[in-house]
Amino acid sequence: MRCLVLGGAGFIGSHLVDGLVSQGHQVRVFDRPQMSRDNLADHPLVEIIEGDFANSGEMADAIRGCDVCYHLISTTLPKSSNADPVFDLESNLVATVRMLGHAVEAGVRKVVFLSSGGTVYGTPQHVPIEEGHPTTPICSYGITKLAIEKYLELFRHLHGLDYTVLRLSNPYGERQRINASQGAVAVFLGKVLHDESVEIWGDGSVVRDYIHISDVVSAMLRCIDRAPGSVLNIGSGAGLSLNEVLDAIERVTGRTAVRAYKPGRAFDVPVSILDIGSARRELDWQPVVEFDQGIARMARWLQTN
Amino acid sequence: MRCLVLGGAGFIGSHLVDGLVSQGHQVRVFDRPQMSRDNLADHPLVEIIEGDFANSGEMADAIRGCDVCYHLISTTLPKSSNADPVFDLESNLVATVRMLGHAVEAGVRKVVFLSSGGTVYGTPQHVPIEEGHPTTPICSYGITKLAIEKYLELFRHLHGLDYTVLRLSNPYGERQRINASQGAVAVFLGKVLHDESVEIWGDGSVVRDYIHISDVVSAMLRCIDRAPGSVLNIGSGAGLSLNEVLDAIERVTGRTAVRAYKPGRAFDVPVSILDIGSARRELDWQPVVEFDQGIARMARWLQTN
Repeated sequence: MRCLVLGGAGFIGSHLVDGLVSQGHQVRVFDRPQMSRDNLADHPLVEIIEGDFANSGEMADAIRGCDVCYHLISTTLPKSSNADPVFDLESNLVATVRMLGHAVEAGVRKVVFLSSGGTVYGTPQHVPIEEGHPTTPICSYGITKLAIEKYLELFRHLHGLDYTVLRLSNPYGERQRINASQGAVAVFLGKVLHDESVEIWGDGSVVRDYIHISDVVSAMLRCIDRAPGSVLNIGSGAGLSLNEVLDAIERVTGRTAVRAYKPGRAFDVPVSILDIGSARRELDWQPVVEFDQGIARMARWLQTN
Repeated sequence: MRCLVLGGAGFIGSHLVDGLVSQGHQVRVFDRPQMSRDNLADHPLVEIIEGDFANSGEMADAIRGCDVCYHLISTTLPKSSNADPVFDLESNLVATVRMLGHAVEAGVRKVVFLSSGGTVYGTPQHVPIEEGHPTTPICSYGITKLAIEKYLELFRHLHGLDYTVLRLSNPYGERQRINASQGAVAVFLGKVLHDESVEIWGDGSVVRDYIHISDVVSAMLRCIDRAPGSVLNIGSGAGLSLNEVLDAIERVTGRTAVRAYKPGRAFDVPVSILDIGSARRELDWQPVVEFDQGIARMARWLQTN
């Protein structure tokens, strides 16, 4: 199978590329010229194409000849998306709908889209959140993800283009940037390993569903021939508060986290835990990496890279 | 109150303008220069501004000084939207999000948005359809309406801009065009009055919820000071098949409809009837025009215009 990975040079993308290659698939990575290639191993099965997702001609060229398209590109983050919703719409939603048109023309069999379990539901009415929970995003990022999901269903209905949507919780793991503006686990772990104080927005009670990157990739690989036309939550199915994340980091590293509590942020919902029953059934999948074990793998990677 | 009516020269808009004027509101109509002014009475309370909804500067000027904004503009129809979803997104969704930004800057108190009860739900899992029914549109038109609803909620959350969304069923009535590509009641009635044969897509069993324009307007007027942050179905709450619509037209006009049955269309869901309980409660509203009575009013209007 030839698989296109949009955003294949990033944290999640590069792990997916490794997983696809290990299963013998041909992989075409599409990412921005500015992206570092550090995460991509030189491998005969891997081809790299540089381009801009919003450039319709480049996308049409990239998608030609591919059987499966993994769409992992986002030009915004939840918190940045509200600053300019029009940019969010243009660069993510409109560009994706153009891409779907090219996918139909190119005879692509399936699109696997990475959606956002943390934003499409908005403030949860209950946890764990199942896929049928109301969708009331409190950031533009979540609305564009949701609209892309709807267009995938429309293109399936109109043009027979299959898809699986994965509403991902909070992934963490090796290769994640420790100096980014998202990814609490990586940022916290980096600070603790460098003996820097950890800034916590709010009182540390905010609960999230963290999943190790290897469990994310195992779910994504199973989408190639499973779950047609499905929208599935992907997470651990359990919640940890920011304080519990720091407790785990202290436990695993043997260090003490210096905790600096800051005012909370308007776009943070208090708790988000995903119900992963649908993914268990439809993908015959389950997460296997315990949080402490995942932290240990990540800490080892950070200490050698 | 000063009310801006985006799309105020059209079928629904012009009736709304009349309703607002009758309640003593100042009205600013914003519509395309190409739109006929035939439906708009010359009235000291009514100001007309010509412009393009997608022209951000014109929109900013139009919205300044208004308390309430009624958004009735759509550049596409359900069936045309699938031919070019990118155009649908750019001209409706992106333009609306820009408009919402201007509304916040201008201190607008409330936006009343006309959404689509016939498309946002997709193929109904049951009827009547309540607002919590899953939303799986099978046309781009329905996706952009739905995404606009989500942005309204986001802008309320972020900026305190109030809104009411009305998910309208199939409106019919005086001033509706009889030569348009939508509006089965008007098209059918026009054909029957002109002794022309009526083309029916499918076997005439397709069921829709038809509501007279005066009942639509009474609901819209009540949104000025009711139903903050609500999404409400607006319809008759009952269904009629195309064959039953023709039966009523025959009954009211005393003429015989020549029925020409054509193949069905992929974007027509078999049945759509809205549950209007929420609107009854939140707007203290109910539809009062019986279908036969509405047809009679429309027939009289058609015969004198």
